[in-house]
Amino acid sequence: MTRVAFIGLGLMGKPMAKRLLRCGHELTVHNRSRGPVEELEALGARAASSPEEAARSSEVTFLMLPDSKDVRDVVLGEGGLMGGLKSGSIVVDCSTVSPMTEVEIASKLAGLGVSYLDAPVTGGTVAAEAGTLTFMVGGEREAFERVRPLLECMGRRIEYMGPSGSGQLTKLANQIAVAGTLLAAAEALVFAVKVGLDPRKVLDVIGSGAAGSWQLNNLGPKMIERDYSPGFKVEHLRKDLRIVLEVAERTGVPLFGASTVHQLTKVLSAMGFDKHGTQAVFEVLLRFSHEA
Amino acid sequence: MTRVAFIGLGLMGKPMAKRLLRCGHELTVHNRSRGPVEELEALGARAASSPEEAARSSEVTFLMLPDSKDVRDVVLGEGGLMGGLKSGSIVVDCSTVSPMTEVEIASKLAGLGVSYLDAPVTGGTVAAEAGTLTFMVGGEREAFERVRPLLECMGRRIEYMGPSGSGQLTKLANQIAVAGTLLAAAEALVFAVKVGLDPRKVLDVIGSGAAGSWQLNNLGPKMIERDYSPGFKVEHLRKDLRIVLEVAERTGVPLFGASTVHQLTKVLSAMGFDKHGTQAVFEVLLRFSHEA
Repeated sequence: MTRVAFIGLGLMGKPMAKRLLRCGHELTVHNRSRGPVEELEALGARAASSPEEAARSSEVTFLMLPDSKDVRDVVLGEGGLMGGLKSGSIVVDCSTVSPMTEVEIASKLAGLGVSYLDAPVTGGTVAAEAGTLTFMVGGEREAFERVRPLLECMGRRIEYMGPSGSGQLTKLANQIAVAGTLLAAAEALVFAVKVGLDPRKVLDVIGSGAAGSWQLNNLGPKMIERDYSPGFKVEHLRKDLRIVLEVAERTGVPLFGASTVHQLTKVLSAMGFDKHGTQAVFEVLLRFSHEA
Repeated sequence: MTRVAFIGLGLMGKPMAKRLLRCGHELTVHNRSRGPVEELEALGARAASSPEEAARSSEVTFLMLPDSKDVRDVVLGEGGLMGGLKSGSIVVDCSTVSPMTEVEIASKLAGLGVSYLDAPVTGGTVAAEAGTLTFMVGGEREAFERVRPLLECMGRRIEYMGPSGSGQLTKLANQIAVAGTLLAAAEALVFAVKVGLDPRKVLDVIGSGAAGSWQLNNLGPKMIERDYSPGFKVEHLRKDLRIVLEVAERTGVPLFGASTVHQLTKVLSAMGFDKHGTQAVFEVLLRFSHEA
């Protein structure tokens, strides 16, 4: 049993924190809004009034926050973790944020004798609830080995990727593949619709061969139904691709596909699809088809 | 047993013709170069000196040719099928060519009482040899039903997609998804390499989730090894995407990804990769990464 803190009880953080409770750990939680805190308290967690207070009593502190700025505020800001962390404790950031932010924070915390791991996840809320997330972890290997049992409580695949920032970089590589494949699936199906084919039949025929992908086979049916209910939201893809392009700019990698999808997420946002699923890119291509 | 002709004994046509022989059909072949003709003759096929002669004795004539112009020449040109086809016979074009060409030829042959089906395939040479191709067929349904047993001799999935041109349109939708997904896979892995991750490890971690695709999982390992031996050649992808963009122009569909990959196939060609596998797009992104 470990004394654990969890900061950020959103769509991902809440089910992850619940799993830590269910595995028998002593849990302290903090969140900006009260609702999820009360839900966790009812299950046996303790509420802390600030990240600082949450960190004070904990051996391992998890973060699951929207963006780099939020992580920076929670760790370095007023009432932040920095004031409460004990030497020898570990902070595990499960947010998808800038690897540069992670390297900077890891370096600052190292001065306090605190280890900082970047450990973003894939699998979405379904995997968070089922405890089947994939964790991609960067930072000191020794700290990784110490928190591995906690990660195994929340995930099925726990992968050590290298020094600080490597977890985020792996997640970004994942998002590059997700984004380009999403666009490819949407283009193929919009094409099928506009040339007068039955898109369901096309999906069935092409989905199992060299054109096949998770995006095509899982989001293709939703695209055809114009069901844009969110699995992975447009606003999150846009944020992830912004970070991808920041890193690509520093490392000189040309990303024709990922940069195009990033621009398209701005169009999606302007059209009101920010809170919809990324499969809404299909709708944009459909509406942007001109009369021929 | 059917009297069958096969025109075009290239990397795909030759194994397909061999399977028709093995299924017990009476086969006449024609090909520009002699080598494959002699190989088929040794197995029991008859050689014809022109498409016209091949068509004269056949109930069903198959074509497997490089591009729209070749199909037009073989059907409508001097010594072409038009001179030899009997009323009631069927021509099945397995080439990947322009749907507009197919509709035009189908209309011309209808005047002779000849049915014309467009029936492009996916699966490549491996599936052609194993008899596991997927056929996507457009044209009259009755003619489709008549040739179905012949297609089943060469393929595992035989799909009727709609009126003339629908087979080609389905193949083009397939190629749109293939092209965009290929680029997505290459970008993710070049990114991984340039930021200093182990690309094999990244491929292993991201390949089974929402980033996963046939392209990533089958061509990713070759990209990492910089093995550009051809499965599907760059020059063929460029040709297919040229046709995709011709159709998209007529139907008003915006194809951000497919058009980008089409431009990149020109770069690949200029860099000498025309006869290499499409996974060589990885090499272009790698070489185009600037110092940062």
